[in-house]
Amino acid sequence: MEFTAEVLTITAGGRRIAILGEETASQLGVHSSDRIRITYGGASIIAIANIAAHFPTNRIGLYEEISAALGLKGDEPVQVELAQLPESLSHVRAKVRGERLRGPDITTIVKDVVERHLSEVEIAAFLTALNVYGLNMGETEAMSRAMVETGKTLDFGEAPILDKHSIGGLPGDKTSMLVVPIVAAAGFTIPKTSSRAVTSPAGTADRVETLCPVNLSIAEIKRVVEKTSGCLVWGGALELAPADDLFIQIEYPLGIDPLLLPSIMSKKKAIGATHIVIDIPTGTGAKIKNTTDAYTLASDFVDLGKRLGMTIQCALTFGEQPLGYAVGPALEAREALTTLMGEGPADLREKAVILAGMLFEMAGTEDGRQRAENMLQSGRAEKKLREIIEAQGGNPNVKPEDIPVGAQKAEVTAEQAGRVMWISTESIIRVAREAGAPKEKGAGVVFKAKLGEAVKKGGVLFEVYAERSSKLEAALELSGKLQPVVLSRKAEERMLLDQVPEKVTREKPFVLER
Amino acid sequence: MEFTAEVLTITAGGRRIAILGEETASQLGVHSSDRIRITYGGASIIAIANIAAHFPTNRIGLYEEISAALGLKGDEPVQVELAQLPESLSHVRAKVRGERLRGPDITTIVKDVVERHLSEVEIAAFLTALNVYGLNMGETEAMSRAMVETGKTLDFGEAPILDKHSIGGLPGDKTSMLVVPIVAAAGFTIPKTSSRAVTSPAGTADRVETLCPVNLSIAEIKRVVEKTSGCLVWGGALELAPADDLFIQIEYPLGIDPLLLPSIMSKKKAIGATHIVIDIPTGTGAKIKNTTDAYTLASDFVDLGKRLGMTIQCALTFGEQPLGYAVGPALEAREALTTLMGEGPADLREKAVILAGMLFEMAGTEDGRQRAENMLQSGRAEKKLREIIEAQGGNPNVKPEDIPVGAQKAEVTAEQAGRVMWISTESIIRVAREAGAPKEKGAGVVFKAKLGEAVKKGGVLFEVYAERSSKLEAALELSGKLQPVVLSRKAEERMLLDQVPEKVTREKPFVLER
Repeated sequence: MEFTAEVLTITAGGRRIAILGEETASQLGVHSSDRIRITYGGASIIAIANIAAHFPTNRIGLYEEISAALGLKGDEPVQVELAQLPESLSHVRAKVRGERLRGPDITTIVKDVVERHLSEVEIAAFLTALNVYGLNMGETEAMSRAMVETGKTLDFGEAPILDKHSIGGLPGDKTSMLVVPIVAAAGFTIPKTSSRAVTSPAGTADRVETLCPVNLSIAEIKRVVEKTSGCLVWGGALELAPADDLFIQIEYPLGIDPLLLPSIMSKKKAIGATHIVIDIPTGTGAKIKNTTDAYTLASDFVDLGKRLGMTIQCALTFGEQPLGYAVGPALEAREALTTLMGEGPADLREKAVILAGMLFEMAGTEDGRQRAENMLQSGRAEKKLREIIEAQGGNPNVKPEDIPVGAQKAEVTAEQAGRVMWISTESIIRVAREAGAPKEKGAGVVFKAKLGEAVKKGGVLFEVYAERSSKLEAALELSGKLQPVVLSRKAEERMLLDQVPEKVTREKPFVLER
Repeated sequence: MEFTAEVLTITAGGRRIAILGEETASQLGVHSSDRIRITYGGASIIAIANIAAHFPTNRIGLYEEISAALGLKGDEPVQVELAQLPESLSHVRAKVRGERLRGPDITTIVKDVVERHLSEVEIAAFLTALNVYGLNMGETEAMSRAMVETGKTLDFGEAPILDKHSIGGLPGDKTSMLVVPIVAAAGFTIPKTSSRAVTSPAGTADRVETLCPVNLSIAEIKRVVEKTSGCLVWGGALELAPADDLFIQIEYPLGIDPLLLPSIMSKKKAIGATHIVIDIPTGTGAKIKNTTDAYTLASDFVDLGKRLGMTIQCALTFGEQPLGYAVGPALEAREALTTLMGEGPADLREKAVILAGMLFEMAGTEDGRQRAENMLQSGRAEKKLREIIEAQGGNPNVKPEDIPVGAQKAEVTAEQAGRVMWISTESIIRVAREAGAPKEKGAGVVFKAKLGEAVKKGGVLFEVYAERSSKLEAALELSGKLQPVVLSRKAEERMLLDQVPEKVTREKPFVLER
């Protein structure tokens, strides 16, 4: 049937949505969420129908995504018909019924997600079903491959291309800002893309952005990596595995994360990484609460890496408290820079050296940890970070105190003397976000005492920073309610719990003495 | 923060959606699908944020649902802030994790569905989780009650208020059009609300609409029922259990039906029914494929009825083939009228008499079946239907041949002689819909042979009716592909397989003769 195009001057957030009046929809036999095919001048596009009361008869409302794709200016006659259900929907329904999907089924689904042939409702059902039933390794591999194939890929030339990733969840984890310059300083290629915070007080992209731009194009990234061997950029706008970004939009309100493995591994595959160390912070303060789950996840990563042609080592790291002292974009950037300059907290330094050392050994270097230490102690890692900052368009001579932090500041003190027995990372995340992080980059928390440290009565437990006094007050009020730091007892220091698969140790040859 | 309202001149299909530009959303700390509170002139409303590229900074786009609720004309300053997550979302997330919900949790969810505080993505996740995990009887009861409480209810005065419902799935099932007049003719109140077809070729509302208006207001329904003791109206716009309609919109594209029991029972409770017979067509052609599932469902209905204070009897009926000969709104209305007038197919007549008889006995009459027979044979049921047609605004003197059916007609014939061994109801549904049903009311299928009947070579299996020749051709082509009727063997006639709970039989008193 022919309709007159009404061009709406707004986008639908990337969705391909067309609006039909009730009468018009009924004429077409279209129900809400049905797909329709809109044809104009030889080109046609599939859209999802939204039925709106009172929308004029014989007109079809088109958001910018559709009018732009069809080159419509408004009032043109377009052909509209009910479209067949996409094949991918039958696979979505099969997964909702609990069936296992074959590789090609998953490819079809991911393609239709990226091409916007599946509605948000259908994607939500698919992700919920995946969350309930889980994915087997075949499905996980197919999902990872499909996510790579439906996006852009990068090629930085000869292997090894190194990379480091944390599954996240630990506030204050600014390790990437140290690992990248340590590894690049040794001459290895490490093109690190990072995310911004969604539910945390800071993502690596938020931290680095206080030093230099992170929103680089693919061409700019290539130039930076050619010059410095490394980069620290935001991966969100590069269209590497774009399906992942669409999935995350749906997963976020639901609080589910069924695609952790393919999400991480597809991004790594898309940038061409060959050797990757995956950090799995493990403990009550982290995403993974116990070592059983951590080992399962680690061997899944290793297995999936093999299937995708990548070498993976997982580090199970201490996840009972925030890493370092600082939480919040600018405060963390200060701490990372300070640590590269030779000061800074021992746990952060230790973790960076261990992870960089693992990467060195995976790339064939002996005694990787020592090499990482050398890069740090010699100042070469610091020099490398400054090169990267300059190449990305920042000030290479920046001093830690140049990074602006919130002018509003208050101390949270101990009501009694004791040792720090427990720090609730969840509560610290909430307090830092209430103070304004990650949006207000100078906001956050700086610890003055961590696990096992003694605090006097009235001694400072942590400081809260904010850019606005109203936010500072709100954060302090929340802190008073949540009491994120609990006093007493002694705790451990060791950062690395284990590494998977286990580090190769050269066994002495067996000698039978006679 | 203050924004300028931009009033969009379209609705969002009932959803409360506000549009923010990327920059504006980031200022507010709002992500896609986050909830925002919009305040204007003392009133405030919760909306779901859609983030659109290029939307002007410091403006907020409001669909009609929101601008109407807040009385905005455009360009007014409105206050906007990130809203807390609704409590219902934490219950949705709990269900996605597989937890059992308490009654108040479910009430909160259903309320937020009706008040549009939950997004389609969140509702889709909830329904998918329900479909996977199932509901226990406590959850089912809570869901039913919450669906009643969040909508309008009707009161037709003194009990018993009778009702009949089929769980559906069987094409050609026009039994309600006979049961309602039979029951009302005996003086009982039976205010029957029905649905329109969504995936079938005809719903009862579609059938009745070929005789008289079905889109009546609550006041009009009350008038019709006071006058005639019965009615046959569309329930969709009455806001009885409106949550159900919102759930169905989401379930439809997903092909899931996790709320079958609360969906049916909440509507019945809302119209004040006290005694209900539920028809469960059982067989390969029906929604319920085997008697094990049918008995389980039946006892769930009975149990749920008790919890909600309603008396339920379930009829497990023969569901191996379409009911009667006609499929499609007008063709079925013709057949129903013909049957009330003394002719018509034996299976339809039998089923109507059995179900009406069960209702009579539930309401305290002895030998209900005979009473139903009497109503039919005496012509009182026909007279009653004509009264109802007139009260609803139709022509009471309508003859079956007055009901217009499709002018385009073709016969599908047997390629060989044989007995009808199998009729694929699924294929017949597809052929009838391809011919134009339910939208084109004269379209459909009329069988000339049913299970067990002998057909000669070249004899007619069924006729296809359409309003347009293109549709007729498409239907015939599909029919040729699907071959809905398979020949050979003899089959049974018995309509009632069983009834649950079993019919009360008055036992003779035990007498010991000495």
